[in-house]
Amino acid sequence: MRVLLINPNTTQSITQLLLRAGQAVASPGTEIIALTAVRGVPCIATRAEALLGSATVLEMIAEHQNRADAVIVGAFGDPGLFGARELFDLPVLGMSEASMLTACMLGRRFSIITFARALRPWYVDCVEMHGLSGRCASVRTLPGSFVSITEIQEEKEALLIELANAAVEQDDADAIILAGAPLAGMANKVKDCVPVPLVDPIQSAVKQAEGLFALAPRKPTAGTFRRPDPKSTLGLPEPLASRIEHRANSDREGVYL
Amino acid sequence: MRVLLINPNTTQSITQLLLRAGQAVASPGTEIIALTAVRGVPCIATRAEALLGSATVLEMIAEHQNRADAVIVGAFGDPGLFGARELFDLPVLGMSEASMLTACMLGRRFSIITFARALRPWYVDCVEMHGLSGRCASVRTLPGSFVSITEIQEEKEALLIELANAAVEQDDADAIILAGAPLAGMANKVKDCVPVPLVDPIQSAVKQAEGLFALAPRKPTAGTFRRPDPKSTLGLPEPLASRIEHRANSDREGVYL
Amino acid sequence: MRVLLINPNTTQSITQLLLRAGQAVASPGTEIIALTAVRGVPCIATRAEALLGSATVLEMIAEHQNRADAVIVGAFGDPGLFGARELFDLPVLGMSEASMLTACMLGRRFSIITFARALRPWYVDCVEMHGLSGRCASVRTLPGSFVSITEIQEEKEALLIELANAAVEQDDADAIILAGAPLAGMANKVKDCVPVPLVDPIQSAVKQAEGLFALAPRKPTAGTFRRPDPKSTLGLPEPLASRIEHRANSDREGVYL
Amino acid sequence: MRVLLINPNTTQSITQLLLRAGQAVASPGTEIIALTAVRGVPCIATRAEALLGSATVLEMIAEHQNRADAVIVGAFGDPGLFGARELFDLPVLGMSEASMLTACMLGRRFSIITFARALRPWYVDCVEMHGLSGRCASVRTLPGSFVSITEIQEEKEALLIELANAAVEQDDADAIILAGAPLAGMANKVKDCVPVPLVDPIQSAVKQAEGLFALAPRKPTAGTFRRPDPKSTLGLPEPLASRIEHRANSDREGVYL
Amino acid sequence: MRVLLINPNTTQSITQLLLRAGQAVASPGTEIIALTAVRGVPCIATRAEALLGSATVLEMIAEHQNRADAVIVGAFGDPGLFGARELFDLPVLGMSEASMLTACMLGRRFSIITFARALRPWYVDCVEMHGLSGRCASVRTLPGSFVSITEIQEEKEALLIELANAAVEQDDADAIILAGAPLAGMANKVKDCVPVPLVDPIQSAVKQAEGLFALAPRKPTAGTFRRPDPKSTLGLPEPLASRIEHRANSDREGVYL
Amino acid sequence: MRVLLINPNTTQSITQLLLRAGQAVASPGTEIIALTAVRGVPCIATRAEALLGSATVLEMIAEHQNRADAVIVGAFGDPGLFGARELFDLPVLGMSEASMLTACMLGRRFSIITFARALRPWYVDCVEMHGLSGRCASVRTLPGSFVSITEIQEEKEALLIELANAAVEQDDADAIILAGAPLAGMANKVKDCVPVPLVDPIQSAVKQAEGLFALAPRKPTAGTFRRPDPKSTLGLPEPLASRIEHRANSDREGVYL
Repeated sequence: MRVLLINPNTTQSITQLLLRAGQAVASPGTEIIALTAVRGVPCIATRAEALLGSATVLEMIAEHQNRADAVIVGAFGDPGLFGARELFDLPVLGMSEASMLTACMLGRRFSIITFARALRPWYVDCVEMHGLSGRCASVRTLPGSFVSITEIQEEKEALLIELANAAVEQDDADAIILAGAPLAGMANKVKDCVPVPLVDPIQSAVKQAEGLFALAPRKPTAGTFRRPDPKSTLGLPEPLASRIEHRANSDREGVYL
Repeated sequence: MRVLLINPNTTQSITQLLLRAGQAVASPGTEIIALTAVRGVPCIATRAEALLGSATVLEMIAEHQNRADAVIVGAFGDPGLFGARELFDLPVLGMSEASMLTACMLGRRFSIITFARALRPWYVDCVEMHGLSGRCASVRTLPGSFVSITEIQEEKEALLIELANAAVEQDDADAIILAGAPLAGMANKVKDCVPVPLVDPIQSAVKQAEGLFALAPRKPTAGTFRRPDPKSTLGLPEPLASRIEHRANSDREGVYL
Repeated sequence: MRVLLINPNTTQSITQLLLRAGQAVASPGTEIIALTAVRGVPCIATRAEALLGSATVLEMIAEHQNRADAVIVGAFGDPGLFGARELFDLPVLGMSEASMLTACMLGRRFSIITFARALRPWYVDCVEMHGLSGRCASVRTLPGSFVSITEIQEEKEALLIELANAAVEQDDADAIILAGAPLAGMANKVKDCVPVPLVDPIQSAVKQAEGLFALAPRKPTAGTFRRPDPKSTLGLPEPLASRIEHRANSDREGVYL
Repeated sequence: MRVLLINPNTTQSITQLLLRAGQAVASPGTEIIALTAVRGVPCIATRAEALLGSATVLEMIAEHQNRADAVIVGAFGDPGLFGARELFDLPVLGMSEASMLTACMLGRRFSIITFARALRPWYVDCVEMHGLSGRCASVRTLPGSFVSITEIQEEKEALLIELANAAVEQDDADAIILAGAPLAGMANKVKDCVPVPLVDPIQSAVKQAEGLFALAPRKPTAGTFRRPDPKSTLGLPEPLASRIEHRANSDREGVYL
Repeated sequence: MRVLLINPNTTQSITQLLLRAGQAVASPGTEIIALTAVRGVPCIATRAEALLGSATVLEMIAEHQNRADAVIVGAFGDPGLFGARELFDLPVLGMSEASMLTACMLGRRFSIITFARALRPWYVDCVEMHGLSGRCASVRTLPGSFVSITEIQEEKEALLIELANAAVEQDDADAIILAGAPLAGMANKVKDCVPVPLVDPIQSAVKQAEGLFALAPRKPTAGTFRRPDPKSTLGLPEPLASRIEHRANSDREGVYL
Repeated sequence: MRVLLINPNTTQSITQLLLRAGQAVASPGTEIIALTAVRGVPCIATRAEALLGSATVLEMIAEHQNRADAVIVGAFGDPGLFGARELFDLPVLGMSEASMLTACMLGRRFSIITFARALRPWYVDCVEMHGLSGRCASVRTLPGSFVSITEIQEEKEALLIELANAAVEQDDADAIILAGAPLAGMANKVKDCVPVPLVDPIQSAVKQAEGLFALAPRKPTAGTFRRPDPKSTLGLPEPLASRIEHRANSDREGVYL
C-alpha cells in the first residue's frame, strides 16, 4: 500500500525524521510518500498555527490523493483530521489519535510528553477533541528553549527521559507518548530508560494505517463523516475547489469506496 | 466601541443579516463593522469548510484589527476562535460560545436548532469544544433542502418553530438557540411561538462583546491564550505573517493590553 | 434599566462595596438599587448559611420586584438563584454564574480564589451546580483569619495576588475569578499583578444583566424555569406568600413577560 | 435509637404516611419521632419551595436535636441536607440520597418515578447534587393533576405501575425509586407488578439511619462537613441562632461526637 | 437473618478478622457464617488474582446459598459481585460497594487507603466499576512491604493514620475508607486519630445487608440483574453447573424471590 | 509472528469462525493458533459466565504462552484482559477493545450491535471498563431466540442489517461494531448494506496484534500492568500457579521483554 505522509510544517528535515521513523516499522509492501508544506510555519506549536496547518493539510490531500491508499497527518495535534475524513474517500489518520489509541492497549492511562511548553494547550485540546481525557494521565512539557528543532532528540534526551519518569511516578501513567514530530523515532531508542511502554506517534500511525487498509472499511454515506454535498467555492486552490464542488476529476478509485 | 464582525462565509447578504440583527440590540455607542470573506464557500456547513474558514478568519482579523476594539466571528461553529484569541490582543467572541453562555442563564439545558442536517456534526463538535455538553439538551436540524440561503427564515419559519417546540417537549430544553448565520434576527420575531426563551447568536455576541469591553480584561501573558512566541512564516498573507513574526507593525493599541 | 442588587448578607458595608463596584461598569442608563438583608449572618460562608440566605433572597425579591427590570443575587455562591428564576417574571442573575460564564470567554479553564477557607466547599458545590466543573481549574482559598470583613481587600491584597499567581502556575488557570462579595471591585485594582485576566463577579453580573435586558428573552411557560402552579402557604411573609399563591397583586409588568 | 423524622411539608397526613412506612421496617429498638413543618407549603414541589423548606429543616433540627440520635429529612429532594450535615453533630439522612444509594446495590442504573410533573426539575437537580447522574436511568413523572395529595397512592396506582414498567423497558432501569413523600409505603404494596426491585425512600432512610447509628462515625472536625466557626446572627429563631453562634446550650451529647 | 461471608482469600485468619469485625456491629438476630476459599491466593491483591477469586466466589455461593439470606463478598475489590447478583436469588453485597455508599452519606468525597501499593490499580478499577469516581478523592497506599498479613493493623497503624490524614489535608477527603480485608475492625480503634469519619468495609457491608434484608426487594426478572437463561456447562463444580443449567435443586426459597 | 487466539467459549465451531475471519486479514507472516476452552459454557453471554471465562483465559494463556508472540482473547467482552495484561509478558489483546479503538478512527461515535438481548449488560459494562462510553452511541441487540449459535450469521442477517441501520439513523452512529464471536467474519459480507463502516472485532484484533508486535513495546515494570510480585497459591492448575509464584519455568522469551 501507499501511505501519503503530509507534514503541515514547512521544515523538510522534520519530514525526513518522520519518514525514517515510519519506514522502520512499515511492513514490506508499504510505501510511504512524504510531503512537506510550502506554506505555514517551520514547526506548528499553537492553536492558530494548527488552524493554518489544517487548511494546508486539506489542500495537500486534495492535490495528492490519487497517489495513495491512506493519508497520515504528520503533526501531533492532528490538524485537519476530521475535516479531511469527511472530505476525502480514503482513510486519514492522525499521529495523536493513532498513538493515543495504541497507548490505550498498553495502559489504563497514558501521559503525553513533549519538548516545548507552547505545545501544551493545543495538545490538551486535542485529547479532549478525541474524547480521551479520561484515559490521559497528564500532558507534560519541558521548560526552556532549544537550539535546533531537528536535533532536539539529542539535545533534550536526558530531560525527556526524566520527564517521562516523572509522569510514571507522579501522574500514574502506564504508558508514555513521545509527542511532537521532532521526536519521531526516539521512543525505540530510549525504551530501556523508562519503566513503562513508550509510544511513537508516527510509528503508531503507520501500523494503524496498514491495519485500516487491510480491514478495508467503506466510505460512509451517512453519519458525521459522509462526504459533504457539492458547494461552490471562491479563491481556493484548484484541486481542493474541485473536490468541494464535486467535479468529476476530484474522485479517486480507492480502498475506501 | 467598534466591533469587527467577521463573516467567514462569502455571501454578502448573510453579512447584512448579521449586521442588522446585531445593530438591533447594540448600545448607542457601539459601531459594528461587518466584513465578508473573499475566499471560501457561500455558507460554511461542515468541518472541512470550517477549517478553511478558520484560516480566513485569522487572515481577516490580522488585516483589520486596528479598526476595532473587539471581534465577533460570524459563523455559528466559532471557526478560528481559540486561535484568534491567542494570536491577537483584542477580545474575540464566537457566536456559538456567546449564545450558549447566554442560554446557560436562561435554562438548565439548551437545545440548538438549525436549518440543515449537514451542520449537525460540526455543531456537536462545537458544543464539546466548549465543554458544555452537559448543558446541551440536543442539537436538532431540519431535514430536506432549501430554496435560498438568505430567505430561509421565511421559507422555514413554521418548521423551525415546530422543531423548537419538539426540543422543549421531547428533549427537556429550557432555552433554544436559533443557530446558523442565516437565522440571524429570527429569534425575536417568533418568540411568542415557543414557550421558552429563544437565543439569537449574533445578538448574544454583540452584548457579550460590549460587556467584555466594559470589563476591560487584560491580554494574558501566561496560560493557554498568551500570545505565541515569534516564529518565521512562509507564504502567508502579509498582515498575518507580520503578526506571527511579531513585526512591529503588527501590534495595536487596544482595550485588551 | 433598574437592577435590584440583593445582598443576602446583613452587612451594609458589603452592600456598598458591591454597589460601587457595579456602578463602576454600569452603562449610562443603568440604575442599581442595592438592598441588605435584615435577617441572617454578616457574611454567608457555608452551606447552612447559604440555605438561610436563599430563603431571604426569595423574600426580598418578592417584596421589591416591582422596582426593577432584573435582579442580581449579591453573594458568590448564588443562594436562591434557581428558585428565584422559576418563581419570578424578571431575569435573575447570580454573581458566581455570571463571572464563570464571563471567564469562559477569557480562558479554557478558570480558577476561583477567595479569602477564607470556610467558603471552599460551598463554592465547589456551586461550580458543580452550574455544570462547569470541567471548566474550573481550581478553587483556592487563603488560610488563617482576617481583621475586618470590609477591609479584606487591603489586608490580604498581597496574599490574594500570590494565590492567583499560584493558580496560574500550578493549576493551569487561564483566568481568575476574585470571589466573595468582600472582594468586589478588587479585580481592576490588581490586574497588572497577575498575568491572566481577573474577573470581578459583581461587575460581570451587571454587564450580563444589561445584556439580558437588551435581548429581552420571554418568561418560560414550559421547562424547568416555568412559574410553579399556585399553592397555598403557611406562615410566609406576605409578598412571598402572595407570589406563591398567584394572588393578583403578585404580578408585575416587565421585560420578561 | 431515636430518629427524628422532619417533614418540611405542612401536611400532617403526609407525616403520618411517612411515619407508618418507616415504622414498618424499623428494628425493634428504633423509635421514630415525626414532626410537621408549621411554615411553608403543603407539599414541596419546586426549587423555590425546596429552598424555603431547607431553612425550615435547619430551624426544626436546631429546636429538636436533643431528642434524637439521627435525623431524616422527610422530603424526596433532600432540602437542607448538606447544610444540616455541617451544622449539627448527629447523622442527618435524606430520603433521596438513602434511596439512591440503596438502589445502587440493586441495579446498575435506577429510575426515579413520581406523581407530578412539577417535581421533575428539582429531582433532576437532586440526582446531580449527589453526583449520581451516571447511575440514574431516568426521572419520569405522571402528567395531569390529582384529587388529594394524601390519596395519590390509591388514585394513581395503575398509572404509577405503568410508569415504572416503562422505565424498565425503555430506559434500562434495573431498580425503581417511588419518590415523593406521598408515595411512602407504596413500594411494598405493588412489588409484584414491576419486574425489578422497587425502592421506598423513607424505608431506605430508616435502615440507613440505623446502620449509621451502629457504625457510630465521628463528627468531622475537618473537611466540608466540619462545623462552621461561630458567627453572629440577626433575626433567626433562637435555637438556630444559638447553634450558629456556638452558644453553650446549642451542643448535644450524641453518637456522633 | 443469616449472612454468608465469603472470603475469596485462602487465609483463614483473615476470615476470622472479618467475622469478628462484622459481629461487632451486627444486630441481635444476625448470624454471620464465614467461609474461606480453598483455592486461590492468600490475599488477593491484583486484577488477575481478583478474576480467579471471582470464579471462586461464584462456586462458593452456589454451594452454600441455602444456608443464608444474604451474601457478603469478603474482599475489598468486590470480586464476582455483579456476576453473583445476576446468578443468584439472594442479595449479594460487596465490601467496597457497601463502604463507598456508606461513605457517600458522610462526605462529599471519600478517600480509600490501604496497606500495599499493589492493590491500587484494582481498587481504582473498582471505584470506576461502581460509577463513583466523581465521589472519590483519592486512593492512597503505603509503600514498602510488611511482616505478616494478619498483623498489619498493629504493624502499620501509625503509617495508616498518617496516610489518612494526608488524604484529608491534601486530597480534600471528607471520609476515609480503611480498605482491604486485613484492616477489618481497625476503623473503630483509631477513629480519634483522624479528623473525619473512618469507614470499615465489612461493618458497612453487614449493616447494608441487614438493611436490604429488612427492605426485602424482589429478585428482578428484567434488567441487567435478571437471572440468565439456562445454559449447558462443561467441567464446572456441580452446584455451580446446576445453578447455571437451571436444574431444580439449584433453587432456594428466600427473601429475594 | 504467532498469535494465540484463546476462545473462552467451549464451542469449537466458534473457534473455527474466529480463526477463519482472522486469517482472512492476517499478514503473510502471521500464524494464528486457535484454542477452545474445555471448561465453561458454549457461548459466554452474561457477567457470571464472563467471570468464569476470565479464569479460564488466565489458565489457558499460562499453559500456552511459549507458543506465541501475542494473545487475543476471543470473546467480545474481553474476559480476563486486564488480569492477563499484568500477569504475562506478551501483548494481550481483547476483541472489544481492539474493535472499539479501530472504530474510533472511523467515526466520532460507534454503536455495538449483537444477536442476543442477554449480552447487553455485559457489553455496556465492557464499554465503561474501557473508558469509551463517550464514544459509544448505543449498544443494540436483537430480541428473540435463535436456532444455532454457529449459524446465526445466516439466520439473522436481515435483522442484524436492520439493527445496524437503526443505530445509524436513530443513535447517530458513525460506525458499527458487529459484536459477539458468532458474528466473526460477517462485517465484510454485508458492508454494502449499511451506509457506515462495519467493524469486525476479531479482524481488528489481529491487525492490532500485528501492529503492537511491530512496535515492540516493553513489558512495564511500573504502573498498573507491571507483573505482580510472587505469591503462593492453592489448588490452581500448574502452569498458572507457576506463573503467579514466579517459578523459573514460568518465564518466556518474547517481544515484550
